[in-house]
Order: sequence, then C-alpha cells, then structure tokens
Amino acid sequence: MRVFGIDCGTEFTGWGIVEADERARTPRLVPVAAGSIKLNKKDRTPVRLHQVYTELAGLLTAYAPDVVAIEDVFFSANAKSALKLGQVRGVALLAAATCNLQVAEYAPLKIKSSVVGYGLAKKEQVQFMVARLLEIENQFETADAADALAIAITHIHTLQTESAISLAGVR
Amino acid sequence: MRVFGIDCGTEFTGWGIVEADERARTPRLVPVAAGSIKLNKKDRTPVRLHQVYTELAGLLTAYAPDVVAIEDVFFSANAKSALKLGQVRGVALLAAATCNLQVAEYAPLKIKSSVVGYGLAKKEQVQFMVARLLEIENQFETADAADALAIAITHIHTLQTESAISLAGVR
Repeated sequence: MRVFGIDCGTEFTGWGIVEADERARTPRLVPVAAGSIKLNKKDRTPVRLHQVYTELAGLLTAYAPDVVAIEDVFFSANAKSALKLGQVRGVALLAAATCNLQVAEYAPLKIKSSVVGYGLAKKEQVQFMVARLLEIENQFETADAADALAIAITHIHTLQTESAISLAGVR
Repeated sequence: MRVFGIDCGTEFTGWGIVEADERARTPRLVPVAAGSIKLNKKDRTPVRLHQVYTELAGLLTAYAPDVVAIEDVFFSANAKSALKLGQVRGVALLAAATCNLQVAEYAPLKIKSSVVGYGLAKKEQVQFMVARLLEIENQFETADAADALAIAITHIHTLQTESAISLAGVR
C-alpha cells in the first residue's frame, strides 16, 4: 500500500509518500518521496489555492497512491487562521476527490502518539522518529514534509493495528 | 459588467449573477440567474467539496462573468466551523482562479450597508432590498441565493462609487 500524507499550511503544505505491506506483521516502511509546496505571500489567495491544488493533483497523478492521509481538523484559538487553513485543506481534499482517492483523517495527538509514542511530542522529536522509522537521514526539506510523512506512517500503523486486532479475533 | 456573487456555506452555497453598466450614473441592475448548491450531509467532505467546485466551475463557464464577488472572512466564534467554512471557500476561490477570474471580497457589514443601507440588517431586509433593487419578486430559492445576489450588487455599487469619486476628481 502506498500512502500519500498531506500536512496543510497557509505558507508551506508538506507532502510525503510512504509504502508498506500493511498485512505483514513487521512491515518495512519505505519512503518514496517527500517535499513541500511553498506559497508566495505576495500572491492573492485564489492564486495560492490554485497552486496548492495543481501541485497536489500533479503529485497524486504522478505517484498514484492507494490512499490519502491528512491531519484532522485543527482547533485553532483564532477563527481567522482556522478559516485560512480550511481554505488550503479544502483544495487538498478536492485534489484527492478529483483523483478518486479515499481520504483518512488523523488528529494531531494520534499522529504524534503513533510516530513518537507520545501525543504531545515536539516537532524535533517527530522529525527524529520519522527519519528513524524510514531509515533515512534526519534532513527534511521542511518540517511540514516530515509531518506529512508522519501522517502517512500513522495511516499504515493504524491499518496494521486493525489488522492485528482482526487476526486475534478481538472483533 | 457581469458579476458572479458567491455566498459560501457548509450546507448551502448560494450563487447569483447581476449585470450592470458600472459606468452609467444610474445603472439598472439586471438579474441574470441565481440559485444554490445544496450539499448532502451524508456525503463525505471531499465529495461535498468536489460537488461545490464542479458546480461552481460549470456555472462560471456557462455564464462567463467578468468578475467574482465573495463574502470576506467570516469571524466565527468557533474555530471548527470557521475551518469547515474555509474548506468550502477554498474550493470556491479555486473555481474562480481556474476560470481566470479576479475575485473581489466584501465584509458582511459592507454588503448589508451597500444593499440595505444598514450594516446590521436582518436576512429578511436583505432579501426585500435585493428583490427591490433587481425588480424581481421576493421569492428566492434559498436565503443564500439572495445573499449571493447582494454580494454581486455590492460589487457594482462599489465600482460606481469609485467611478463617481474618480470623475469628481477627489482622488
């Protein structure tokens, strides 16, 4: 299974692709690619949204993942920043829908727990563990690219757990 | 000039098109069409966003407006609802950008002031005045369709005012 993780942001939107055999008992996580879409603050919002959408749709087409994983609703203290983040998230979800891909959503706490084992982990801890789990150097284009990989890993871990529970006949 | 107004919402997204010669001193506002895109609550978010985007892009292509007018950032007390509204607004702005259309944004207070003459006007007052200004019956498909027409009218009124100021040599 190939998972395309997206970490939406109003300045940088990270993306990262991880592959794994989710049915294996101890599947190796294989990094495929990662990067971030940088938005120009000088551009008007519609232009920026068009850039995010076009680049994501292009990446989804090029890398043909099986599923998209995205961070769940972020509770900002500020409604204005939530609306702006929502605009980016809206076009990211649209890109997935346009490519006929299912979207799995994970809360920030769940992502950190899944990757670091601690829901309130710091960004540096997430990056360290993402690099370790993927057996790559801890050198990411942006923190957002590492976060996107973390989201993809969370999806694979979640499927593994569900698969293990199912095999054990717990449900 | 043909203006395409959009009133974004997570359940209904209203749209309305108004035409006017913005350079005339007392231009007649001509209603072209209006309606609303109803989203099915049972659909998943990416599917709903895809519906809004596809319908809006289709309407923009069919009616070929000169400009898109949209309500400016709405300050919700609730960050979660702001994020959800932002997602819809994001795909609406994307539809405008995809059709190479400029987007003008107006704050709710400005829209109500422009149409009713009173920034805290109620929905019914907005509908009454939209019907009166467009010389149509006060029967709208939804309140959102009337709001979208109000946004389009606000854009025309704004251009008229700017044009009048410019002619008077004030700036």
